[in-house]
Amino acid sequence: MPTTPAYAATSADTPLAPFSVERRAPRANEVLIDILFCGVCHSDVHQARDEWGGAIFPMVPGHEIVGRVAQVGEGASKFKVGDTVGVGCFVDSCRECPQCRAGVEQHCAFGMTATYNSRERDGGAPTYGGYSTRITVHEDYVLRIPEGLALDGAAPLLCAGITTYSPLRQYGVGKGSEVAVVGLGGLGHMGVKLAVAMGARVTVLSTSESKRQDALALGAHDFLATRDGSVFKSHAGRFDLILDTASAPHDYNAYLTLLKFNGTMVLLGIPDQPLPVAAGALIMQRRKLAGSLIGGIAETQEMLDFCGVHGITSDIELIDIEQINEAYDRMVRNDVRYRFVIDTASLSKAA
Amino acid sequence: MPTTPAYAATSADTPLAPFSVERRAPRANEVLIDILFCGVCHSDVHQARDEWGGAIFPMVPGHEIVGRVAQVGEGASKFKVGDTVGVGCFVDSCRECPQCRAGVEQHCAFGMTATYNSRERDGGAPTYGGYSTRITVHEDYVLRIPEGLALDGAAPLLCAGITTYSPLRQYGVGKGSEVAVVGLGGLGHMGVKLAVAMGARVTVLSTSESKRQDALALGAHDFLATRDGSVFKSHAGRFDLILDTASAPHDYNAYLTLLKFNGTMVLLGIPDQPLPVAAGALIMQRRKLAGSLIGGIAETQEMLDFCGVHGITSDIELIDIEQINEAYDRMVRNDVRYRFVIDTASLSKAA
Repeated sequence: MPTTPAYAATSADTPLAPFSVERRAPRANEVLIDILFCGVCHSDVHQARDEWGGAIFPMVPGHEIVGRVAQVGEGASKFKVGDTVGVGCFVDSCRECPQCRAGVEQHCAFGMTATYNSRERDGGAPTYGGYSTRITVHEDYVLRIPEGLALDGAAPLLCAGITTYSPLRQYGVGKGSEVAVVGLGGLGHMGVKLAVAMGARVTVLSTSESKRQDALALGAHDFLATRDGSVFKSHAGRFDLILDTASAPHDYNAYLTLLKFNGTMVLLGIPDQPLPVAAGALIMQRRKLAGSLIGGIAETQEMLDFCGVHGITSDIELIDIEQINEAYDRMVRNDVRYRFVIDTASLSKAA
Repeated sequence: MPTTPAYAATSADTPLAPFSVERRAPRANEVLIDILFCGVCHSDVHQARDEWGGAIFPMVPGHEIVGRVAQVGEGASKFKVGDTVGVGCFVDSCRECPQCRAGVEQHCAFGMTATYNSRERDGGAPTYGGYSTRITVHEDYVLRIPEGLALDGAAPLLCAGITTYSPLRQYGVGKGSEVAVVGLGGLGHMGVKLAVAMGARVTVLSTSESKRQDALALGAHDFLATRDGSVFKSHAGRFDLILDTASAPHDYNAYLTLLKFNGTMVLLGIPDQPLPVAAGALIMQRRKLAGSLIGGIAETQEMLDFCGVHGITSDIELIDIEQINEAYDRMVRNDVRYRFVIDTASLSKAA
């Protein structure tokens, strides 16, 4: 098997640069995938810059992968050569703990094997992600991309899509639900599209009035500019569910007052530091503050199928791999509508 | 109707002192109750000292009331003269909002009418609580005390009991549940007794090793002294539910790591200030931080009946009303096992 062109960070403070990885020929039940597109998640930046600690260098980021099956290993039965498939945030898990058995492999008691910046369960070799042209993955951790979706726009569904879809399902969002989405970035814009498709009445909350038109264009029914603090009083008790995608510091307690009795605010963004929570904000009206982390394999497939039915993809800016460092800088400035996606054909040209 | 002896705070910084209130003869569907015992809740101290703002003086505290029906108004059908009854934290609500209709009157959209330091819905007169010898209440907000319970020890069930019972039920605690109770005071000791009676395996978490014997004597199966920070690592992922009764500042994030996948920490104590919450502590293992506030009338009756079946009352120190100011000072120092209860016969003597 020839080496595979890739882009890697070799340390926390150097730009990503050309690299090559070995991808194994598919073993039993594995599939080798030719990667077509890979989304660029904000967590790629955090990890490539070692902002969360524990980074394994050299690191090939990328966990929003869409491609075509190029080869199947012995016994692989779920996919055949030519199938359009996806790989998300993890490529393995223990398969035996209560969470794995319950289909929430992302919460594997022994830790999921992340698609990159992780170590294989068998042998401990580093995993390398989707900023490359090929990847070999056990078929149980491969998703089917429904027909009819633009493949570049589908890539971010594997992380941004499932991250917002899962809590909408966990909390039973459906026709008539009042859902708020805090922040209109990669996650937020998917949250709007998915919640609207589920029949919810969706309101975008953003610090800046400038996002109003974007929010409405994405299908949101309403928009509240939170810089005007009076909205927290005038809309108190309005929402069943708040998806909070913001990672900049913000006042959780103010947002909690927007929830109805028994409502939940789900944190999807991870601010740099813990933020204060007032017990009274939860005790009054029995409100809940929760978190959610991507989704399991079965739920990710459900989300993709849902997107196939409703024609939902991410709004993206397609880039060549040479633009990745500039893209990282723009993401840090929140300057992207709404997700960068790498056309991995550019990797072959760059190699 | 003669005036009723009581004790009141006349300002935030004066001790409670003898006072008298007018109690009306029962109107339609109301009952007049001769109060026998009234528990002393920590919130009595906060409100009498106006630490939460908005205090109405003179204030007659007390919302853990047990007594006997002395007179019934026209049309009252639920109780008869001589019945042993209780009154908890509220005496009225709007009856029409979604929460009232759902039996969670404590979350009434228009605000419950608290038993004291509140205003009647009809006319706006201040409500006066159980540090008195009589109270008139609509029968819909009166509870039946099951036979066989010590009436002094039953009084704290009306607040401390329901405050801990409700979240145990909300989160489905039963045989085999792993429940932690943080803090071993008025609320905590009730949480232990109730969770044990529901079949849970109960662990008390307290800063101080000195509470171990007390915890085990109350029925707890295990005890963890949290001053030894290593317990947070060695017991990570252990509990289905944590009842957090502590109001001193503590690290919510450390306690959250003790929860299993999908576990919930319910805040019952209200620290003086908001405490930091790390989004990652909720996102990992899909943990939840929630609040709970007493319970509705139907659930409070269910709790009392449960206590009747299981012979559960509060461990108390019975006091005369003249000791109330000393009792407040001792409560502030956490020096009570585990609840002061006023013998209201002392009010008649004091008058």
